[in-house]
Amino acid sequence: MFYGLMSDIQFDIAIIGSGMAGLSAAIYAGRYEMRTVIIGDEPGGATASAWTIENYPGYKEIDGYDLIMKVKDQAESLGAKVLHDKVISVDKTGETFSLGTESGQTVAAKTLLFAHGAARRKLKLPKEDDFALGKGVHYCTTCDGPLYKGKTIGIVGGGDAAIKGANLAVQYAEKIHIIEITNSLKPEPVNMARLQPFINSGKVEVHLETEIVELLGNDRLTGVRTKEGKEFVLDGLFVEIGAVPEMALATKLDVKLDDYGYIAVNNEMETNIPGIYAAGDSTNFFGHFKQDITAAAMGAVAATSAFNYLQKPKD
Amino acid sequence: MFYGLMSDIQFDIAIIGSGMAGLSAAIYAGRYEMRTVIIGDEPGGATASAWTIENYPGYKEIDGYDLIMKVKDQAESLGAKVLHDKVISVDKTGETFSLGTESGQTVAAKTLLFAHGAARRKLKLPKEDDFALGKGVHYCTTCDGPLYKGKTIGIVGGGDAAIKGANLAVQYAEKIHIIEITNSLKPEPVNMARLQPFINSGKVEVHLETEIVELLGNDRLTGVRTKEGKEFVLDGLFVEIGAVPEMALATKLDVKLDDYGYIAVNNEMETNIPGIYAAGDSTNFFGHFKQDITAAAMGAVAATSAFNYLQKPKD
Repeated sequence: MFYGLMSDIQFDIAIIGSGMAGLSAAIYAGRYEMRTVIIGDEPGGATASAWTIENYPGYKEIDGYDLIMKVKDQAESLGAKVLHDKVISVDKTGETFSLGTESGQTVAAKTLLFAHGAARRKLKLPKEDDFALGKGVHYCTTCDGPLYKGKTIGIVGGGDAAIKGANLAVQYAEKIHIIEITNSLKPEPVNMARLQPFINSGKVEVHLETEIVELLGNDRLTGVRTKEGKEFVLDGLFVEIGAVPEMALATKLDVKLDDYGYIAVNNEMETNIPGIYAAGDSTNFFGHFKQDITAAAMGAVAATSAFNYLQKPKD
Repeated sequence: MFYGLMSDIQFDIAIIGSGMAGLSAAIYAGRYEMRTVIIGDEPGGATASAWTIENYPGYKEIDGYDLIMKVKDQAESLGAKVLHDKVISVDKTGETFSLGTESGQTVAAKTLLFAHGAARRKLKLPKEDDFALGKGVHYCTTCDGPLYKGKTIGIVGGGDAAIKGANLAVQYAEKIHIIEITNSLKPEPVNMARLQPFINSGKVEVHLETEIVELLGNDRLTGVRTKEGKEFVLDGLFVEIGAVPEMALATKLDVKLDDYGYIAVNNEMETNIPGIYAAGDSTNFFGHFKQDITAAAMGAVAATSAFNYLQKPKD
């Protein structure tokens, strides 16, 4: 039994996640005249906090938040219903998927799209979760970097997110320590080239083969201690070491995951379960290459597959 | 031996085709600081003649030409060199690809991306090629439809391109006959719904299970005759029956094609030949679902794969 404001409507597609993949799917679903609902607890997903985006074809330079709001507006203008809510339960009865949300809504739909992305990976150190509540530990440099004007910060990680984050933060922070556990940085060269002058000037220091083993401070972060015996005095720490997908809802419906824990999909974004699709960062379809443009394409493909599925006569 | 203005430069990537896939690849290649050249004889590719686009995430409504010019500008601002020319020969010597163009230029590059799309399919009837030279036969309704103000036209085909074209042409033409060989139309519902009032009013007539066997007229098209014995008096005929890929250059380099004659690629847009990639409508990666958003994503992925290939130490 399901109750709630949405429960009278049988949607053609329910989309979990309101980032680029989900909203792009909603645009296509809307064009196909499918009754479409999107449920997401992070409006705009990762794109909303991406700061300046320069590689989305069609916009030479656009703020991630502005881009995703345009896409949201486009989806809504085509009839999609966007709920700011969190899906906490899923079920399948006959041919119908039923979703329950944190606020107590229930949603019924004929097809389901997982487009909920992947959460940021943590250091898994004591006090990390406490400090993450506005007390010095962050997981998105481009989102929260500007908070540390004139301060000293650490950025953990050596990938593109870390270096892109450093490029932003360097405009605000007095000093940045980049702390990377491996022996090299692996950003996009263009982002590395931008950071290089700040490394040369000493404003940014890179520490390779350095592993943080302890977060220092009582009420809030005051620094970190490393396995190699170094100590850094820090006002803030930004953890940029990748993402980890949350798949409890998908596995509840017997959706098959790949070796890395992401949803396995084919070229049509179909999962192993008929009527269930996945798109964007919750898949590994294009490997670790996870971009707005690929998420948008996957969303469009997923919606098209769901549409084709509904068009087909059922046994 | 190669001569020409470009011959002194060893490009990191040469992109054949200047449509959405090629230009999107150039944006990413530019961000990777790869020396990038794009060679295309149809500037903007199919997108340039797409008329109003309403399903590209980020633009609620944009003219195809305007969109692709933004993407071209973006690619050029990141350093890509765009040549309006046609590649007529390819060769591989050692690790270097050599391209010869119609205008006599030669281009050398370390990697190669096929992003040249697929040409429109023809009826293969006598006089068709002659009439296609501005004498009544066309292959893009949204491009040339406006030429027939107050006239009677035929549109061959029942897919989305045909119906989308009819929706545009109905604003200009006095009368439209849609002529489809199968027993049904298969457009996007939203496009069908738009056309329906014109079908109801009789301005647009749909003729199913109707096959054109003869183009009438001497100097220019005056009508068509069908297998079923019907004759239509027409001022213009728009052939919207799909596309056919041109793969002579690819097969010259032993690139493997799929069963439908498109370039076979994996999820990284790699072909069977190291250093050669394909993206956009020249592949069947997403099946018959060929959109700007998917072409752009494939281009981004292809450029990334080419970049990774060049980063790897060679044997």
